[in-house]
Amino acid sequence: MNVTLLAGGVGGARLAHGLDLALSPQSLTVVVNVGDDTELHGLAISPDIDTVLYTLAELNDEDRGWGLRGESYATLSALKELGEDTWFTLGDRDLATHIVRTARLRRGDALSAVTAHIARSMGVRPCVLPVTDDHLATLVDTPSGRLGFQEYFVGRQHADAVLGLHFDGADAARPAPGVLDALAAELVVLAPSNPFLSIEPLLAVRGVREALVMAPGRRVAVSPIVGGQAIKGPAAQILESLGHEVSALGVARIYADLVDVMVIDERDASLAGPVADLGLTVHVTDTIMGGPPGRERLARELLALA
Amino acid sequence: MNVTLLAGGVGGARLAHGLDLALSPQSLTVVVNVGDDTELHGLAISPDIDTVLYTLAELNDEDRGWGLRGESYATLSALKELGEDTWFTLGDRDLATHIVRTARLRRGDALSAVTAHIARSMGVRPCVLPVTDDHLATLVDTPSGRLGFQEYFVGRQHADAVLGLHFDGADAARPAPGVLDALAAELVVLAPSNPFLSIEPLLAVRGVREALVMAPGRRVAVSPIVGGQAIKGPAAQILESLGHEVSALGVARIYADLVDVMVIDERDASLAGPVADLGLTVHVTDTIMGGPPGRERLARELLALA
Repeated sequence: MNVTLLAGGVGGARLAHGLDLALSPQSLTVVVNVGDDTELHGLAISPDIDTVLYTLAELNDEDRGWGLRGESYATLSALKELGEDTWFTLGDRDLATHIVRTARLRRGDALSAVTAHIARSMGVRPCVLPVTDDHLATLVDTPSGRLGFQEYFVGRQHADAVLGLHFDGADAARPAPGVLDALAAELVVLAPSNPFLSIEPLLAVRGVREALVMAPGRRVAVSPIVGGQAIKGPAAQILESLGHEVSALGVARIYADLVDVMVIDERDASLAGPVADLGLTVHVTDTIMGGPPGRERLARELLALA
Repeated sequence: MNVTLLAGGVGGARLAHGLDLALSPQSLTVVVNVGDDTELHGLAISPDIDTVLYTLAELNDEDRGWGLRGESYATLSALKELGEDTWFTLGDRDLATHIVRTARLRRGDALSAVTAHIARSMGVRPCVLPVTDDHLATLVDTPSGRLGFQEYFVGRQHADAVLGLHFDGADAARPAPGVLDALAAELVVLAPSNPFLSIEPLLAVRGVREALVMAPGRRVAVSPIVGGQAIKGPAAQILESLGHEVSALGVARIYADLVDVMVIDERDASLAGPVADLGLTVHVTDTIMGGPPGRERLARELLALA
C-alpha cells in the first residue's frame, strides 16, 4: 500500500516512524512543512525536515523531542565567544546537517534533492519531501507584531498570543517534485501536528489543498488535541486565540472538508458523535504514541482504515 | 615603533606573537597570506589568517602547529557520515570561525572586515590584515599536474615535487585597505615563512612588491632555513626543486632586492660573509623561537635592528 503522511515536527516524525515500521520499504512518502525553516549563522536550518529525518534514522533525542541524541555543543559555544547570537541551540552533529544542506543549496541543488541526499546518507527508507523547494516562511502575528516563526517559537518560547498566521511566499511556491503525485496515494494521513503551524503551511502551497480535496485515496487526520490539550507545543493556545474550540472536535471542524476519517483519542470518545455529525468517519483509539511500539500500533490502525 | 610583519602560517604566527609581546598595543600590523584559502563544505577557510589569530589569542594548539587547543571533532565525524569528504581536519571550535567568516562574506563584508571582527572577538591586539580582499589562490605545478594549494599541502601531504607556482587572481587582486600603508612602518619584517608558498603570494598582489621595494623603514627578513633544513614544512624541497640553494644564503638571494637586513641562525654563521656580499646587513642569532619567551626574544632583537 502507498501511504503519504503530511507532517510537521515531532508528532509527524513519530507517526512517520510508526508507518515506516509498519510498511514495506518504498511505500511511505512524508511531505514535510518548511514554513519553520530559517537561516542562522548563514546556515539553512529546516527544523521539521530534520526532526523527521532524525526520527526515521532513529538518531533523534527522544527525551527532548528535537535534535540528535548525545549531542555536544562545542561549535555553538565558540560561536557565542565570537559574538554570535546563540538563542537557537545547534548541536555539533546537527550542524553537520545544516552545513551540508547549505553547501548544496548554495551550489544550486533543490531542497528536495538535498533532503534526499541527507536521508540516503542516514539510511532513511521513506521518501521525505519538503512540501516545496521554493521560499515559504511562516510569519506569526502577535500583540507584539509580526514575528518570524523561530523568533516566535524558540526565541520567545511561543508565549505570545497568535492573532493570525501569514505564509510568506505561499502564493508563488510550487509543490516540490513528487508532492502532488504523493497525494494520490491509497492512504493520505494528516499527522497529529499543529493544524496551523504545521499543516496549514503545507496546504498553502499552490495546488496542495486542491490535490488533497480531490485525492482519490482514503484521507485520515489524527487529532493533535487530546482531552482539550495539545500533546506538545502551542496548538491549544493557537486554536483558542484564533477562535476555535480547543478539542478534537475543533480540529475536526478545521479538517472536515479535507479528510474522510478523523482519528480521536479514547479520552475524547464523547466527541465521536459531534465529529461524525460533520460527515466524517470517526476512529477512536489511543493516539498517544510514545515510543516505537506505540507508533507502530497507531500506524497499523491507520493502515487498516484505508 | 610601528612594525609590520608579512606572514604565512606557523612561523609567521609565532613571530607575530613575539612582536605582540614585545610591543605596545596598536604598534603591530600583520599582513597575512590568503593564497592557501579554500572552500570546504561550503565554508570559507583561511588557514594562515586563523593560525595567526589563534596564536595571537593564545588559543592555538602548539604541539600540532595548527588549529585550536583542546578541539573536538563531532561535526567532522557527522559530516563524514553524511558522505562528505573529510580529508581536511576541521575541529568543532575551529568550525565556528569558518561559519562566522562565511556568513559575513556571503552578506558582502570584505575578508579584512570579517578578520577584524573575529580578531576583536578573540581579544587579539595587533591589526591582522589579509593581504587582499580579492580572490587569490596559490596553485602548485607538480609532476602530477596543477594542484590546488590544500590538495597539494594537506591532501597529498606536500609530497609532490614543486615545479612552479601560480597565484591565481594576483594580477587583479588589490591590496586590502591598510596593507600598503602598513608597508610604510618603521620596521617591516618578512617572517620565517615559506618564501614561495607564504611570502611570494603576498608580494604577487598588485603594488605590494613595489611598496616593499620602496619602503621607507628598515626591512628585515628572517630565514626559514636553518642548517640547510626548513624549520617546518616543505620549504627545503621547494627551494631545491625550483633550483635554489637550500640554505639561508639561498633565501637571502631571493630576498636580496627586497630587504636591508637578513637574519640567519647561529648554526649558519659561516654564511654571514656570502650573505653580506649580496649587499645585505647580516644579523646572526638563535632564530628557533619555540615558546613565547623565545618568540619575544627574537622579536626584541628584530626591533633593535630598526
